[in-house]
Amino acid sequence: MFSIRVYNLSDKWQNLSGHLEGQQHFLPIRVYYEDTDFSGLVYHASYLLWCERARTEFVRLLGLHQKDMFAQKDPKKQRFFVVRRMELDYLKPALMDDQLEVVSRVDELGSASVTLIQEVRRGDTVLFCAKVVIVHMSGEGRPARMDEATREAFLSKES
Amino acid sequence: MFSIRVYNLSDKWQNLSGHLEGQQHFLPIRVYYEDTDFSGLVYHASYLLWCERARTEFVRLLGLHQKDMFAQKDPKKQRFFVVRRMELDYLKPALMDDQLEVVSRVDELGSASVTLIQEVRRGDTVLFCAKVVIVHMSGEGRPARMDEATREAFLSKES
Amino acid sequence: MFSIRVYNLSDKWQNLSGHLEGQQHFLPIRVYYEDTDFSGLVYHASYLLWCERARTEFVRLLGLHQKDMFAQKDPKKQRFFVVRRMELDYLKPALMDDQLEVVSRVDELGSASVTLIQEVRRGDTVLFCAKVVIVHMSGEGRPARMDEATREAFLSKES
Amino acid sequence: MFSIRVYNLSDKWQNLSGHLEGQQHFLPIRVYYEDTDFSGLVYHASYLLWCERARTEFVRLLGLHQKDMFAQKDPKKQRFFVVRRMELDYLKPALMDDQLEVVSRVDELGSASVTLIQEVRRGDTVLFCAKVVIVHMSGEGRPARMDEATREAFLSKES
Repeated sequence: MFSIRVYNLSDKWQNLSGHLEGQQHFLPIRVYYEDTDFSGLVYHASYLLWCERARTEFVRLLGLHQKDMFAQKDPKKQRFFVVRRMELDYLKPALMDDQLEVVSRVDELGSASVTLIQEVRRGDTVLFCAKVVIVHMSGEGRPARMDEATREAFLSKES
Repeated sequence: MFSIRVYNLSDKWQNLSGHLEGQQHFLPIRVYYEDTDFSGLVYHASYLLWCERARTEFVRLLGLHQKDMFAQKDPKKQRFFVVRRMELDYLKPALMDDQLEVVSRVDELGSASVTLIQEVRRGDTVLFCAKVVIVHMSGEGRPARMDEATREAFLSKES
Repeated sequence: MFSIRVYNLSDKWQNLSGHLEGQQHFLPIRVYYEDTDFSGLVYHASYLLWCERARTEFVRLLGLHQKDMFAQKDPKKQRFFVVRRMELDYLKPALMDDQLEVVSRVDELGSASVTLIQEVRRGDTVLFCAKVVIVHMSGEGRPARMDEATREAFLSKES
Repeated sequence: MFSIRVYNLSDKWQNLSGHLEGQQHFLPIRVYYEDTDFSGLVYHASYLLWCERARTEFVRLLGLHQKDMFAQKDPKKQRFFVVRRMELDYLKPALMDDQLEVVSRVDELGSASVTLIQEVRRGDTVLFCAKVVIVHMSGEGRPARMDEATREAFLSKES
């Protein structure tokens, strides 16, 4: 509908995508008003937003282009990832103004699914831990086997 | 991509769309954790979410089907509304657990735009007031004159 | 800080808190723009917001007043619930305009924790299922044994 | 309730607070799934979240500590800012994956209020412009004259 132009600010703003270090991806997060609730602590769903941002940047740095995969016009060729299952442990609360990191790594690689472990940390303290199963889908709404390039992208980082 | 089935619960759950009364639309809102921040008050962006819910239900009760307008495959025929301008006054704070109403009415009707006045009220007290200009767009990304049926839908409620 | 007045609209707007039916609580949900993302489906974190709304209303209808529990000035007396763990299964996607129900029930009752099962349904179809462990905390940041009245409130609904 | 420890990641992750340049503050923003809706464009309320993040970092870099101002136990001494009024112009849509900047500057300084101009830009293109009036409040819920240090912080950046 609208032409899609990407304006690249990565020279000016380093680390906008976080970075890879060995088999892990690191993304910095600042806690803002929007993330807190009247209890004074961070609202439980904000951790999911942070993890989703981290997955998006992780996959981008692995060389996969989700928007292009999704933008295929033929539904048979269209590909995208959906979350199928999550196990979430809330260990310690994050607070307004905190500087945090989301640390993500591939745990298991299936033919049409990837399992990730994602932690939200403040310094060395793990505040939150998630096991996330994402499924590679076709535009027809069914799981689709990943092609070799996609698997390779994840494999090179698999532990 | 996915077939769209609408399951109608309006017999069981009355007022899911709020209701029209004269030239105004009323939608009830409950304040939840997600709407508050660590100050103890409602976060300022939540009022916009409530107003957007109210516009969606208002337009639905006027007989316009946004999802169908948008679902046209030919971009020339595709139609949707976007927010062009808002003036927002935050008068008094809303709080956790509050029962509120969003009261919406058409203020002005242009050939390709509609101006709405929307208030968030707790009882008779106006907590928030918005003047919202929405524009009727084609899928090609340009303002599109509303057809007669669309204008009529709004006109019948115009003050 | 601000005096807290509750304006009761439950006569005018029935079902704002959903309702109890046997051992289950039902809350209606409408899917709005805010819940969707560019894939056209509902964003995965919206299900958590809906479940939190349902827990808030469920607990309210059980007779527990979270805001009062939290508003105690002495941290030793202050009580509130936090989410400790969640297991989430995303089974089928919800879509814009959908009319859904969150169905919640108590699964297990510990001395300082409650496990809930929550489903998001469209008609008879379960779209999403969550197992949620919430912990009863004191204002000092430690789990606190629930008093008899609080346990009773949950027990009467336990399956 | 919980002790507040700030873990400083600003050496590792530069630009987490954006930066000041002359009289303006710049904050980079990446568009994520959470910011988009089923129209494929960015949801209108996300611009408000981005502007609030930018105000938080702007005020931090000016040397004001919102959390400390708010954490005073005596309501007479407690200070915080609330949004009183906003004028928002949505000029062009932002899209998934976009790299954007929020550019903020002080427009007017009153005795108990500050007016800011905030733009969301993609490269040189202004997508969104906001005029935001924030009011300096006491914990008793009334506007409170800013002390000299607070005014100075803003004045040094006033155009």
